[in-house]
Amino acid sequence: MKHILSIYVKNEPGVMSSVSGLFTRRAFNIDSIAVGTTQDPLVSSMTIVMKGDDDDLRRFQGQLLKLADVLEVRTLPYHGSVTRELMLVRVAAPVERRAEIIAIVDAYEGKVVELTEDSMLIEVNGNNRRITGAIGLLEKHGIQEMARTGQIALGFKADDH
Amino acid sequence: MKHILSIYVKNEPGVMSSVSGLFTRRAFNIDSIAVGTTQDPLVSSMTIVMKGDDDDLRRFQGQLLKLADVLEVRTLPYHGSVTRELMLVRVAAPVERRAEIIAIVDAYEGKVVELTEDSMLIEVNGNNRRITGAIGLLEKHGIQEMARTGQIALGFKADDH
Repeated sequence: MKHILSIYVKNEPGVMSSVSGLFTRRAFNIDSIAVGTTQDPLVSSMTIVMKGDDDDLRRFQGQLLKLADVLEVRTLPYHGSVTRELMLVRVAAPVERRAEIIAIVDAYEGKVVELTEDSMLIEVNGNNRRITGAIGLLEKHGIQEMARTGQIALGFKADDH
Repeated sequence: MKHILSIYVKNEPGVMSSVSGLFTRRAFNIDSIAVGTTQDPLVSSMTIVMKGDDDDLRRFQGQLLKLADVLEVRTLPYHGSVTRELMLVRVAAPVERRAEIIAIVDAYEGKVVELTEDSMLIEVNGNNRRITGAIGLLEKHGIQEMARTGQIALGFKADDH
């Protein structure tokens, strides 16, 4: 079962290290990590997707809250939240393959960022399933390089009721 | 001056901790970190944007390469690369403000992910300037919550020549 933790930490050197040290020592099963800034320059946010049961989640949450630089830990239900990630990928794209690749980009509502003689740089964002689906189709054209963010998430408000 | 480092590390517990421990000990000026998976399940990628001169960059690169789990470190020129980040943001959106907010979303090629009676959940992706611009305009409507990835990057191929 997947859980999302939205963690607010002091924007200070050493925080990332102490939070990620926790994964090591406790061997939690971490799927994805995203570190971002917030509106407050003194505060950073980390979004962590972890696998485990409710006990694992509680244990992890408890460990996080013991860290001095952790300000707040929120949990979000994986299926009641908007989750998004972003990918940049360069695929081989000789002229005769371009139309086929562009059809994939369109289907996944991606964008062609750069087109050269023999390659295409593509951006796709969406939930994990969408990104994985796009990679699956692009793979057979030959992925030359790829960069991918971790997942970020916000809870649906309509689910609060 | 900003530099981008694209780091490939073994997908093992402890790597994040040792890499981020480096920021602490050496006090490098880190702007943004994104951790993502790659095509190879044994390899994760980290994209780090740092501020500093060429000496700082070389020093940081050297330190990274000393770590056992770091497989490869590439540097990308900040202005010769495609950089992208992703933001989810919920703003207060009473009926009379909706049109104004949607105009901002359109201008930044964002998407409305959820609309409730009094709020809008918006996703925007783009380079740092675009995200910062969108936040600047959305801020006055009242940001209720926000999640943001670090920046990812790939080099333009046309700049290789």
